Amino acid sequence: MSAPYQANAVLVGRKDTMNYVLAAIRLFTEGASEVVIKARGRNICKAVDAAERVKATLKDVAVRDVKIYSEEVEDDQGRKRRVSAIEIVLARSQGESS
Amino acid sequence: MSAPYQANAVLVGRKDTMNYVLAAIRLFTEGASEVVIKARGRNICKAVDAAERVKATLKDVAVRDVKIYSEEVEDDQGRKRRVSAIEIVLARSQGESS
Repeated sequence: MSAPYQANAVLVGRKDTMNYVLAAIRLFTEGASEVVIKARGRNICKAVDAAERVKATLKDVAVRDVKIYSEEVEDDQGRKRRVSAIEIVLARSQGESS
Repeated sequence: MSAPYQANAVLVGRKDTMNYVLAAIRLFTEGASEVVIKARGRNICKAVDAAERVKATLKDVAVRDVKIYSEEVEDDQGRKRRVSAIEIVLARSQGESS
């Protein structure tokens, strides 16, 4: 598990994909050189979708890294359950091909 | 877009996750050193889940690479639509830390 707070991270939840696309674009336009989009379980597809839309909108942004892993979460009844998660690192690609 | 046929690929569709987990495990036990799990759109979460389950079952298998990208597909009415996709490369990790 990662630190509870991470700068320039967008945690994808139940809202519409566009919310997360705009959040990531805002971070980039505010000067971030790297933005991490994270999601768990069913929201993983939404995270991939959001990353692809950010890439299509900001032409100098590319996917630097994608990690998949498992986390243990507790449900309402306190039972532990394994859940898949994803982290997509988007980065400005200045000077990549000169 | 990739070639229409790829050896050692598991294309994740509408079936239960376990079908794809077993398909990948079968490929590894038949001697494959690398298996690619692919999915589009809503099936992306299922692909990540399947990869994590294969990893948990076959202890010498690790994620070598994850790629996300966009594809254009035609719907029933012949309209073109962008869809997100994922490719997860699982590989036997012999000799990695020795």
